[in-house]
Amino acid sequence: MGRVTERRRVLRIRDGAVSTRPDTLTAEEPLEIRLAGRPLAITMRTPGDDFALAAGFLVSEGVLGAAADLTSIVYCAGATADGSNTYNVLDVRLAPGVPVPDITLERNVYTTSSCGLCGKASLDAVRTNARWPLDPGPTGLTPALLSSLPERLRERQRVFDKTGGLHAAALFSPSGELLDVREDVGRHNAVDKLIGRALQSDLLPLRDTLLMVSGRASFELVQKAAMAGIPVLAAVSAPSSLAVDLATETGMTLVGFLRGSSMNVYAGSERLQLP
Amino acid sequence: MGRVTERRRVLRIRDGAVSTRPDTLTAEEPLEIRLAGRPLAITMRTPGDDFALAAGFLVSEGVLGAAADLTSIVYCAGATADGSNTYNVLDVRLAPGVPVPDITLERNVYTTSSCGLCGKASLDAVRTNARWPLDPGPTGLTPALLSSLPERLRERQRVFDKTGGLHAAALFSPSGELLDVREDVGRHNAVDKLIGRALQSDLLPLRDTLLMVSGRASFELVQKAAMAGIPVLAAVSAPSSLAVDLATETGMTLVGFLRGSSMNVYAGSERLQLP
Repeated sequence: MGRVTERRRVLRIRDGAVSTRPDTLTAEEPLEIRLAGRPLAITMRTPGDDFALAAGFLVSEGVLGAAADLTSIVYCAGATADGSNTYNVLDVRLAPGVPVPDITLERNVYTTSSCGLCGKASLDAVRTNARWPLDPGPTGLTPALLSSLPERLRERQRVFDKTGGLHAAALFSPSGELLDVREDVGRHNAVDKLIGRALQSDLLPLRDTLLMVSGRASFELVQKAAMAGIPVLAAVSAPSSLAVDLATETGMTLVGFLRGSSMNVYAGSERLQLP
Repeated sequence: MGRVTERRRVLRIRDGAVSTRPDTLTAEEPLEIRLAGRPLAITMRTPGDDFALAAGFLVSEGVLGAAADLTSIVYCAGATADGSNTYNVLDVRLAPGVPVPDITLERNVYTTSSCGLCGKASLDAVRTNARWPLDPGPTGLTPALLSSLPERLRERQRVFDKTGGLHAAALFSPSGELLDVREDVGRHNAVDKLIGRALQSDLLPLRDTLLMVSGRASFELVQKAAMAGIPVLAAVSAPSSLAVDLATETGMTLVGFLRGSSMNVYAGSERLQLP
């Protein structure tokens, strides 16, 4: 975990007073994910949990669904002029019989539907590729339980305390027990790390869990939850229109603006126990 | 601008009281950017200012540097089965003599340096591709002036007021005058829209401006600022390690945690007038 944070000198200004001190920053480095030797994607991420990040990314893309689909993940040495290993390039090998997807620019773009490139096509693609239904999932969730999640997440956000610069994603049980938490400079990476860890432990689909994210709920995050079989997504901030539409289509419960005892339920309110 | 927000019904829970009401959400739709007819990139964005988004993206990628580099940007009709236009696919035509970049997966990945894929290579690539030096840029910037920027940005954030779900990016003059502001579900899109607008008005390089962003400062945002010739970047939240390194290498002033009368200066403090 040595590269999760880095130290830099910073000029600190507080109410007119100036001081110089070392500051702890979130580390950010590029990661190239290769599939059977061929470059598939590159993401800027916080180093650490890289194999989980790659595995989770491939769950989101519909390539992986169980630990047995995966033969190995290794860092590629020799990508550099001197043959050394930057630990920023890794290669995923699939088990025999697991289809290797077409690697094209449009790979995760959902242009296959009749409408060309549009929100509707994006929704259709996720519904078509999803392996598991989200129903029924947990029910009887109380507002009080949901309200307790942000604080439980913050208690476990170690790096955020030091840097203030990380997105966090956490999995909870329906009774509010924190099962796992991952942090990254990229919100989508934090979710991929969480889902990848679950795949490595062969826990997919995550049908009896709640996913909580520290920021907003975009289409991409709802997609990742749906592809991992997670039936409840709660976010501290706002969802987008397409995130709400995808949650509605897949039968996901989507909660936004989860702050104190307040929240908005955008989809799947039947899983809540309301007063 | 009709698609910038959309309405959905939401279940609102406040201190145990439940009500149903319409809610305004930030719109999110995919956008495919084609260059001379070939797909180059896809981004999830808030519709509106699409041509500026595409132009700004191509400035960040080092393809465009002046309005004259651009012949036209048009929405592609006929991408759908019935020939209709989703306004989610556009094609950029470059002026004669402007080199069309190689379109590969590694396009913006900076693997060309001797170290393979690593932070150092990412820094080298931006420095090599940057068209304009950032020095000297504005000097004598006071903490009081910088502290005034977030409030001036918020005053002009129209959609955020309604949805709470948008990132904003704004350009300021060295005296604190707000020159332009753009909003998007994606932080990088908001900056691309701002820079694209400036290119369309032939204002590049933006050497006498400050860029302010509503969230964190990632490597990607510092890269975009550097490619547009912007010498000062201020963010409400934390920068990453690689963002600080890139700001240092390019001679950019990077301010983070700009809140009230407090801020941290991570690079380029010589442009500040300190007490």
